[in-house]
Amino acid sequence: MVLKEKIIQAAREHVPPIFQEQGMTETVHNWEDHGYLVTYIKKNGSFANLRIHPHGLVLVDLQSYNDDVKGREEVDQLLNKVEERMKELFHGSIKRVKRLPAILRGGVIDRYWPTADGRLVEYDIDEVVYDEDSPFQNIKILHSKQFGNILILSGDVNLAESDLAYTQAIMGSGKEDYTGKEVLILGGGDGGILYEIVKLKPKMVTMVEISFDKWPIIHINLTSNIDQMVIDGCKKHMRKTCGDVLDNLKGECYQVLIEDCIPVLKRYAKEGRMFDYVINDLTAVPISTSPEEDSTWEFLRLILDLSMKVLKQDGKYFTQGNCINLTDALTLYEEQLSRLYCPVEFSKETVCVPSYMELYP
Amino acid sequence: MVLKEKIIQAAREHVPPIFQEQGMTETVHNWEDHGYLVTYIKKNGSFANLRIHPHGLVLVDLQSYNDDVKGREEVDQLLNKVEERMKELFHGSIKRVKRLPAILRGGVIDRYWPTADGRLVEYDIDEVVYDEDSPFQNIKILHSKQFGNILILSGDVNLAESDLAYTQAIMGSGKEDYTGKEVLILGGGDGGILYEIVKLKPKMVTMVEISFDKWPIIHINLTSNIDQMVIDGCKKHMRKTCGDVLDNLKGECYQVLIEDCIPVLKRYAKEGRMFDYVINDLTAVPISTSPEEDSTWEFLRLILDLSMKVLKQDGKYFTQGNCINLTDALTLYEEQLSRLYCPVEFSKETVCVPSYMELYP
Repeated sequence: MVLKEKIIQAAREHVPPIFQEQGMTETVHNWEDHGYLVTYIKKNGSFANLRIHPHGLVLVDLQSYNDDVKGREEVDQLLNKVEERMKELFHGSIKRVKRLPAILRGGVIDRYWPTADGRLVEYDIDEVVYDEDSPFQNIKILHSKQFGNILILSGDVNLAESDLAYTQAIMGSGKEDYTGKEVLILGGGDGGILYEIVKLKPKMVTMVEISFDKWPIIHINLTSNIDQMVIDGCKKHMRKTCGDVLDNLKGECYQVLIEDCIPVLKRYAKEGRMFDYVINDLTAVPISTSPEEDSTWEFLRLILDLSMKVLKQDGKYFTQGNCINLTDALTLYEEQLSRLYCPVEFSKETVCVPSYMELYP
Repeated sequence: MVLKEKIIQAAREHVPPIFQEQGMTETVHNWEDHGYLVTYIKKNGSFANLRIHPHGLVLVDLQSYNDDVKGREEVDQLLNKVEERMKELFHGSIKRVKRLPAILRGGVIDRYWPTADGRLVEYDIDEVVYDEDSPFQNIKILHSKQFGNILILSGDVNLAESDLAYTQAIMGSGKEDYTGKEVLILGGGDGGILYEIVKLKPKMVTMVEISFDKWPIIHINLTSNIDQMVIDGCKKHMRKTCGDVLDNLKGECYQVLIEDCIPVLKRYAKEGRMFDYVINDLTAVPISTSPEEDSTWEFLRLILDLSMKVLKQDGKYFTQGNCINLTDALTLYEEQLSRLYCPVEFSKETVCVPSYMELYP
C-alpha cells in the first residue's frame, strides 16, 4: 500500500468513530479515484461532511441550525476531537491545520458583504437599522460596532459613519479652500460631502441627483446614493456623517435638487453657470468592459464632459475610483479622461476607507 | 398542507432535477421535524448539499476540488440554475437570495486570516514569500496585492507594508519630536518603528527583545515580533517597512539587542539609565481574563512597571491596544494602568490600520 493510501485508510478508519460517538449516522461514498465523502447525520437536524482526498487533504464541514452558545461549544468540541485524533494518527506529518470561523446564514442579520474585488469579508454587524427598496435600489443601513452605521446600496458597501477619510479624500484631502466657492456635488446622498463642505463657508453648494432616465440602461454595478429614500434613511440613521444638513433640502449656502442631473448640467452649461468645484460621487468606476457596461462608460463620459462645461478655467473635478485591486477598471477610467472634448490634467491618491476593508484610490 | 410544507415539497421536487441533469447521483435524508438533506455526488469528486429547512431556509453548498476557471464557471452556472428555478417556483415570495464567494481551502496559499475578534476575512494573498517556524512561533510573510507583504506571526496579522499608520500611531502620530532623544523600543522586530525614528535623528534608539524566559508561560495570544528569524524575514521581505535598518544590528544612532528584555530593563533601572520614550510593541492586549491569561496580564504589568522606572520624569510611553471591538480587554488594560507603582496619565487614539481590516486603538 502506498503512503497516501495508508493515510486515507487511517483517516477513514479512525475519524468516523468521533462522529458516531455523537449519535450521528454515517453514509459513505467512495470514488474510485477521488477518495471518500462521508456524511454524518444527527437527529437534531445538523450534519457533517468528511471529505478525504487521495493526496491527503481532509476537509470537515459541520452545519447546524442552532446559533446558541451551547451549539457552538458542541461544534468546537467535536472539531477539537477530530483535530486531536488526526494529530495522533499522523503525528508530525500533518503539514497544516486550519479552522475557519463559522459562517452564519439565513439569520435576520447578514454579516457578509464581499469587497469590490470579490473577497469574502465578515462585518461586525449587530443590527439592521433600515432596510427598504426604493424604485432604484435596495437600501440598507446596518450597524457595525466598530464602523457605526453602514449604508449599503444593492449589496455594495457605500459609506459608514467611520469613513470621514473617504469624504475628505473626495474633497481634496484638506488641500482645498472652499470658502466663498461655488460647488456642485453629483450624487452624495448620504450627505457626508455636503455636511463637510458647508462647514467651510462656501458661497453656494448645489447637490444634484443621478439621471433617472439613464437608470435602466446603467443599472449594472451602478448605485445612486441620492434617491429620496437614501436621503430619508441617512438623515435619520447616518447623522454622524451628514449632521443636520439633510433635514432641509435648502440651507443658507446649499440646496439639494432631487432631479435628474443630466438636464440640470445641460441647463447650467447653457446658462453659463460655472463652478469652482465639481465633485462626482455618483458611482464607482465600472468593473469591466463587458458590452452591458459600455453604456455605463458612456454615461460616465457624458457626466465628465458636461462637468467640464460647467467648471471654471481653474476649477477642479473630484471623483472616486474603485478598489485598488481592480487595476484594469482604473486604467480604463484614466483612458476615458484622455477622450474628453477638452484636455484635462489629473492626479490620484489612495486612501484607507475603514469600512471598505480595502484600499481605494 | 400548510404553506411551509408546500414550500419544502416544491423545493424538494423541483430543485433536484437541476443536479441530476449534471449527472449527479442523489442521496436523501429526511428528518421528521427538520426538513431534508439531499447530497449530490458527481463522478469527478465534487458534491453538493441541498439543505431544506422546514421554515423555508434553503442552503446549497457545492464543493469541488478543481480551482480552474472552467470549474468555477460550471459552479456558477449550476448556482444560477438553482436560483432561477427557485425564483420561478416561489415567484415574489423569496425574501432574500445571497451567494457568497467560494472559500478556497487546502491550497498552497491561505487567504483567510480572521480578525482579532474572530471574523472571517479573505485577503488578496497571491504569494507565500516566507514561511518558517522559529523556536517561538510560526513566521509567515505573505504578499497581498493591495497591502504589500504582510507579516503573520502564529496566525495573527502583525503588520503589512501598507501599515505605516500603525507605526506612526505608536510613535505618537507625528506630534512628538524625537530629535536628540533617547528611545527604547520593546519588540518591534519588523523594524518599522526603528526605521521611522532613525529618520528623525534621535540621540540613541535601543530596540530589545521580549522575555524568552516568560515565553512558555505567556504563549497564549502572545507573539513576539523580534525573534531573530522575524528580523531575518523582515529585513529581506518587508523593506518598505524597515528600509535597511535591520541589515545591521548596530547603526550610528541605534542598536538592536536580541536579548531578554526583562533583565535588560532591570539593569537599566539599576544603572539609572533613563529614556525620553519607551515604545512597547511587544504584544497586543490579552483578549480575556481567563486564568491562563493571568500570567500575560502579570507580564504586561511587569513590563509597564519596569518601563516607568527607566522613563524620565516628562518621558512618554507608547503602546498598542487591541481591536476596538474587544472593549473588555481594553477596559482591563486601562485598569492595569491604575495599578502601577507610580501614578500615570494616559490618552488613547484609534487608527485605521489598512491590513488589519478593523479599527485599532
